[in-house]
Amino acid sequence: MIDEQKLQQTLRGFASDRDWEQFHSPRNLISALNVEAGELLELFQWESKNHIVDVNEPETRQKVEDEIADVFIYLLRIADKLDVSLENVAIAKMKKNAEKYPIDKSKGKAVKYTEL
Amino acid sequence: MIDEQKLQQTLRGFASDRDWEQFHSPRNLISALNVEAGELLELFQWESKNHIVDVNEPETRQKVEDEIADVFIYLLRIADKLDVSLENVAIAKMKKNAEKYPIDKSKGKAVKYTEL
Amino acid sequence: MIDEQKLQQTLRGFASDRDWEQFHSPRNLISALNVEAGELLELFQWESKNHIVDVNEPETRQKVEDEIADVFIYLLRIADKLDVSLENVAIAKMKKNAEKYPIDKSKGKAVKYTEL
Amino acid sequence: MIDEQKLQQTLRGFASDRDWEQFHSPRNLISALNVEAGELLELFQWESKNHIVDVNEPETRQKVEDEIADVFIYLLRIADKLDVSLENVAIAKMKKNAEKYPIDKSKGKAVKYTEL
Repeated sequence: MIDEQKLQQTLRGFASDRDWEQFHSPRNLISALNVEAGELLELFQWESKNHIVDVNEPETRQKVEDEIADVFIYLLRIADKLDVSLENVAIAKMKKNAEKYPIDKSKGKAVKYTEL
Repeated sequence: MIDEQKLQQTLRGFASDRDWEQFHSPRNLISALNVEAGELLELFQWESKNHIVDVNEPETRQKVEDEIADVFIYLLRIADKLDVSLENVAIAKMKKNAEKYPIDKSKGKAVKYTEL
Repeated sequence: MIDEQKLQQTLRGFASDRDWEQFHSPRNLISALNVEAGELLELFQWESKNHIVDVNEPETRQKVEDEIADVFIYLLRIADKLDVSLENVAIAKMKKNAEKYPIDKSKGKAVKYTEL
Repeated sequence: MIDEQKLQQTLRGFASDRDWEQFHSPRNLISALNVEAGELLELFQWESKNHIVDVNEPETRQKVEDEIADVFIYLLRIADKLDVSLENVAIAKMKKNAEKYPIDKSKGKAVKYTEL
């Protein structure tokens, strides 16, 4: 169980202590989310047949965890700012996805629902 | 409280029912996370002095919630694949951030810790 | 005038000298393009009413130029790998955009063509 | 040869005709660049051992070219706004990269220069 509200409260305090609320508009937090998602991608960008990232190698694992954390932290902030429940919107979207991607039509296919 | 494991279990079933596990390497899921983060950013990309996105307008709100959901869904999948607890890594990273950004040095400043 | 082919030839040599062609699939180069675009965005992510990035401040300017360069370098590599002329595809896309966004309908509006 | 200035002039006219200059701050254009880079990545996001994107299939090729064009168009706009020569900054950055990645140290390695 993730205590979303406690995490958000801590993050709110962190920003407020540093007088950073002025920078944390939804748009800016969403920009930061993109930047952090990019940093996570960077760790995997050159994966190739002969070059697989070993996510269990301790130093790599630490980097991966830190970047995942950064993405999650900004996502929590965005949800807090916009008064969105991450769990509720995920459940609602999963229902939509189940309709957009019926099992029989999408089985084994990596294509967009518009092309099924 | 977010029931991370239940959400992940549902997502795992969703992928498995569609024979999509073959596409869901950490690297691919991280690519998808970036794509969805970009779609969320798209909704805010032209914000300007005279053009503020109204996140309470129902159609916009629905889009914003759907994109936030997509980001969260892929983040849950990535955490599941890599056996990472989103809460634990977030808490660990927040501690690091508190050290990297001491209140007195970072107050009111939107700069990287390397420039404090 | 940009000598696209000469730049691409130099970049090809750079990769080949380092035995990096094995990592430079279109997909990997596109991942790197996203990472660099994110690094460029990072420089502007906290822009706010009271915090405008001064792109003429020498150190900031250098960073901005370096990140723009990185995006362009990967774009040149991608175009080279896929045998795409950047100029030709840009001109073709500009024609499409002119049709999707007729002046009278899109004047002063920051919305997607699907909503005009 | 790419006629950068002519392309930029056309793009400037396109924006100005639609009264879009108000939305085209460097920061907003850089956001749009990220969004388009994400759309290009989307076309390749599920690449796997048994699922290679066929960039010669006409419909896919058209999509790839359109997304590459969008990235290039925004890059041209950003360079125009910031008075940056894409060619000059690319050449300057390639020199830096040659120093950061000496051939003997970086041969066959897909790691950041900080780890060589």
